[in-house]
Amino acid sequence: MEFSSKLLENAVYEMSQLPGIGKRTALRLVLHLLKQPEAQTGRLANALGSLRKDIKFCSNCHNISDVVLCEICANPKRDKSLVCVVEDIRDVMAIENTSQYNGLYHVLGGKISPMEGIGPQDLTIQSLVEKVKNGAIRELIFAMSSTMEGDTTNFYIYKQIQDHELTTSTIARGIAVGDELEFADEITLGRSIIHRIPFESSLKANG
Amino acid sequence: MEFSSKLLENAVYEMSQLPGIGKRTALRLVLHLLKQPEAQTGRLANALGSLRKDIKFCSNCHNISDVVLCEICANPKRDKSLVCVVEDIRDVMAIENTSQYNGLYHVLGGKISPMEGIGPQDLTIQSLVEKVKNGAIRELIFAMSSTMEGDTTNFYIYKQIQDHELTTSTIARGIAVGDELEFADEITLGRSIIHRIPFESSLKANG
Repeated sequence: MEFSSKLLENAVYEMSQLPGIGKRTALRLVLHLLKQPEAQTGRLANALGSLRKDIKFCSNCHNISDVVLCEICANPKRDKSLVCVVEDIRDVMAIENTSQYNGLYHVLGGKISPMEGIGPQDLTIQSLVEKVKNGAIRELIFAMSSTMEGDTTNFYIYKQIQDHELTTSTIARGIAVGDELEFADEITLGRSIIHRIPFESSLKANG
Repeated sequence: MEFSSKLLENAVYEMSQLPGIGKRTALRLVLHLLKQPEAQTGRLANALGSLRKDIKFCSNCHNISDVVLCEICANPKRDKSLVCVVEDIRDVMAIENTSQYNGLYHVLGGKISPMEGIGPQDLTIQSLVEKVKNGAIRELIFAMSSTMEGDTTNFYIYKQIQDHELTTSTIARGIAVGDELEFADEITLGRSIIHRIPFESSLKANG
């Protein structure tokens, strides 16, 4: 693409560095901004700048936060001996939305992925192991996504903490609520049979 | 969505104001930026800010430009009596890429669209009419997209300039080069038959 303006070219280039946004989409977005009031572009630029400059990560769970200790970790009503290990803030938001969880989180910041050059030292695993060593955690729930990388990460953490006295669990895999059996993949359906639950418990969950 | 950080929420909100970017995509983009070096976010914010602040529009053709008179309008080798009317800079870039056009452009900045609240006064039509009145234009090529809005805009401009002595034309509509006839829509195929061209001319265009 040849641009008639260096400013435009530069804005399009920087926009196209975002994942899933090619040059054409970037140009469309930038032209849209040019048609909107100048204040909108200013707000976007400021929001991105101050996010990057002032963002903090909770000193306990490593979630994104505006303060040193995030709202969840600072909440006295939360069960601090129950910790759910997740990949990033999106998982925290998803689980919070269920209103079914009253423990704390530990945000790893990604998963072990040799293909992408992400090793254990790039994640907050060491801090999690320290917490376990201090004996403050009663149960650890692994809630990583069900991929090879997720399983690897779970297993790596498990090896480091298995000698300590605590319960470990993973979230249940199975047929989604409302899904038809015939459309489920074999592995999920197989797991949902192996890990079947007493009928009485399922009644309780529905209520 | 409930966010643990106002900074994050704000950045996601501003990002989701862009067309075609919902809250989830915005969150993905913002989290991506957080994982990249801080300099990248700074460059994006700066590029957008200075684009909006310092961008100029060519005083003659209204194309986006860094200078008062854009490169195309300032080029002495260009035929200044031939003007191609287009919607925005993307059309200029597309036509320039063909290397088949040696005239100037007139960028309208959109098309007349009552549905979107865009009237003739929101476009640079008045400036085009002035140019025609000054008698500097020998031929006007309408190269708007072939939609109802595009046709309306063409017709609106045509009505304003029809009493002046100049040639008007529109770009040819027809079967795309390399396309199979059987997959073409009837309207396009019909037009390509009505506006058929002498075989000798088509030989020249191929060479």
